[in-house]
Amino acid sequence: MNREDLKFTLSVLRRSLDGDAFTHVVRHTPHADIADELEALPVADVAALLQTLQPADRTELFSHLPERLQDALLPALPRPVVVQLFETLPSDDRADLFNRLSEEAQAQLLPALAQVEREDILRLAAYPEGSVGSVVTSDYVAVTPDMTAQAALDLIRATAPDKETVYVIYVLNAERQLLGTLSLRELVLCPPDSRISDLMRKDPVFAKAEWPRAQAAELIRRYDLLALPVINGGNRMIGIVTVDDAMDIEKEQDATQLARFGGTAMMGGPDLDIRESSIGQMYKTRVFWLAILTFFGILTSTFVAGQEEILSEVIILAAFIAPIIDMGGNTGSQSATLVIRAMAIGDVKLKWRDIWFVVKREIPIALGLGVTIAILEAILAYFSKGVGFDVLMVVGLTMLIVTVLGGIIGALLPFAARRIGTDPATLSSPMITSIMDLLGVFIYFYIAYLFFGHLMG
Amino acid sequence: MNREDLKFTLSVLRRSLDGDAFTHVVRHTPHADIADELEALPVADVAALLQTLQPADRTELFSHLPERLQDALLPALPRPVVVQLFETLPSDDRADLFNRLSEEAQAQLLPALAQVEREDILRLAAYPEGSVGSVVTSDYVAVTPDMTAQAALDLIRATAPDKETVYVIYVLNAERQLLGTLSLRELVLCPPDSRISDLMRKDPVFAKAEWPRAQAAELIRRYDLLALPVINGGNRMIGIVTVDDAMDIEKEQDATQLARFGGTAMMGGPDLDIRESSIGQMYKTRVFWLAILTFFGILTSTFVAGQEEILSEVIILAAFIAPIIDMGGNTGSQSATLVIRAMAIGDVKLKWRDIWFVVKREIPIALGLGVTIAILEAILAYFSKGVGFDVLMVVGLTMLIVTVLGGIIGALLPFAARRIGTDPATLSSPMITSIMDLLGVFIYFYIAYLFFGHLMG
Repeated sequence: MNREDLKFTLSVLRRSLDGDAFTHVVRHTPHADIADELEALPVADVAALLQTLQPADRTELFSHLPERLQDALLPALPRPVVVQLFETLPSDDRADLFNRLSEEAQAQLLPALAQVEREDILRLAAYPEGSVGSVVTSDYVAVTPDMTAQAALDLIRATAPDKETVYVIYVLNAERQLLGTLSLRELVLCPPDSRISDLMRKDPVFAKAEWPRAQAAELIRRYDLLALPVINGGNRMIGIVTVDDAMDIEKEQDATQLARFGGTAMMGGPDLDIRESSIGQMYKTRVFWLAILTFFGILTSTFVAGQEEILSEVIILAAFIAPIIDMGGNTGSQSATLVIRAMAIGDVKLKWRDIWFVVKREIPIALGLGVTIAILEAILAYFSKGVGFDVLMVVGLTMLIVTVLGGIIGALLPFAARRIGTDPATLSSPMITSIMDLLGVFIYFYIAYLFFGHLMG
Repeated sequence: MNREDLKFTLSVLRRSLDGDAFTHVVRHTPHADIADELEALPVADVAALLQTLQPADRTELFSHLPERLQDALLPALPRPVVVQLFETLPSDDRADLFNRLSEEAQAQLLPALAQVEREDILRLAAYPEGSVGSVVTSDYVAVTPDMTAQAALDLIRATAPDKETVYVIYVLNAERQLLGTLSLRELVLCPPDSRISDLMRKDPVFAKAEWPRAQAAELIRRYDLLALPVINGGNRMIGIVTVDDAMDIEKEQDATQLARFGGTAMMGGPDLDIRESSIGQMYKTRVFWLAILTFFGILTSTFVAGQEEILSEVIILAAFIAPIIDMGGNTGSQSATLVIRAMAIGDVKLKWRDIWFVVKREIPIALGLGVTIAILEAILAYFSKGVGFDVLMVVGLTMLIVTVLGGIIGALLPFAARRIGTDPATLSSPMITSIMDLLGVFIYFYIAYLFFGHLMG
């Protein structure tokens, strides 16, 4: 069914509340598409539609709805339905959902759940947001090392419906410590009486529950895993992170990197989200960076104010302050973002060899850019304002030096950020602007003095 | 084995060239880690080490090496080894490797390959770089709709070693057109005599070979797929894109977004890569954006040059040009990057409803920021330079207006970029700087005239 048909069908179904028809849609249409269309409907209609479904279909669809919609639906659904959702949702989704409830709602919900579910939720929900533990699911297949391949396959057949993935099997000892992993592929291909202990891959890649969740996503990507086992302080396995969750984590992480570069990350605080962050948080984080820029800007403007003498002699110099400081910042942004990008995909690391490689490439490019821009600016300045040759020389030389310096400093800043342990994207942009402003006006007026100093005193 | 041990072991092995020991390392250590350490060794040593391995282990390890190293190794390996690599590498890796060879090397290699491999390489290598076809692997499991589940499992057991993934099975008709998909999980769980045609999921999500590869990665992420089938013009299935490749594609795509924002993307051209792009390409792409900024900058400087009169009266005004244009650009970058981030993770789309939501949030925040920054600037200006009250008013009011305008315009630019079909990150940054420069000086001198106009003429 294409999206137009789906939209139409749902608009009909929300009035007719035909359970059979909606069930058919749910079982034959990708849930991500249904979720998109449901977002546009009134919450009460979505709640009514959900209640026309069988519990299994309802839980499956609910788990694919965006968090905003899930949160809006819970108060609109009858209590038995909410309890049933919490009992059947995948364990990572329901732990998140639980954490988003108010304390009151949490207290009301817990007694209604069976003990197994209640303990599972509380255990997973205890992990701090942003940690690996917060994205873990406890629905994984565990076998013991002495089992045969056939016994393992039988276990999988019996428990598969409740498992997030059966493609990776985890071998645990009696203390639930992780001994090794095995893939379903290997299990299917080997003789049925093989021992798990002979088949399993020892020393598996793993993550600890307290690590940042982005680290789990990176491990999954680096080692091409379908799922990553997660252990707690006692080396006991608590769950897994699956590759689809890893993709979502990385998507959000990378999208955030750009926002950080634009100056919207609190050092060591949460990143801003245009929907999720409150107006207060947005204001506080953004004013922090703008205030830093204002302070640095005062240095620049104080310096320029001190150049009153030469400015009154050659007033036209004021006109070029803007293009000059712009150029330094822009060339710096270019080289900084190129380096940050290379760091993100692992092409460049914090090593002297890589720093030298980057600088060695940047110098000729920045020189070429500087010469081109200096000449271009001089030509345009001449034809637009008919300025004198000496002013052209001052502007041109400054443009050249500022462009080259901007490129090199911009290339080095991400390394400096990594060195002091900050995220390169967060540190680079405000630093580039501030540094190149100050350097720009220093160089500009110094060169201006060389040419026009004779006019004064 | 931890990384220090691995590094030490490899440094020993590269001299001893002990095949058994290296084979043991290769079979018990994640290949991504071995690849990292091999990158630091001389190419001749790596070539020698590879030749101590059995063909299967060697191919497996080679496929995990970074492209740079693969390209450097090929000339250093004996021809029979190169041919054997091309015959056994996963089909997507070898198509890429082939495309990176010189035309001469390609012509020399092809006759040495068996026909099946030669045709497979040529077919996949024909797809343009950046397309879905260029990341496709032809190693997938295909069954016919009339087969039984048992027959399908037998087929998988027989052919599994050559398949990239056996977890998703593709149901094709006699013309190799895609009828449906099935997961190994479902196959293992169902009765052995079930018909494939009854079990399969019809209308599967797919991609076409000519689509941009980022679109395939997005489909995999959106629908939580392990693999995505790819069809060609005749609706025939040509291969699959697996989730691990999708993660790598998205990583590069997102890292690139930041570089575009920094002004290093040619509209409609390839993105710059600090290692891969030539110095010429880097120069050309970057000078393009800097030149655009120079042209816009001329408008700004021409305008300021025209304000000679008021500047000679109130020379101190020149000192604040820099902070004012900075603030507009920075506030704009903040809001633009927040919107771009939200667009990237799908929280905000090109709809009036979302545009209104963003602007509605930005206005109070920008106002708050503007008032704070204006007061801060005024206070700092007073204490650092002791400027008069009227100058403080001019600077303060300008800061306020510029900050508010910067925030709102910055928030709208990504929508405008989407509207005209450009990548929001590419368009926003240079536009923000240029627009806010011009607006900034317009507003500044207009307000200056309001306060100081009486001093003139």
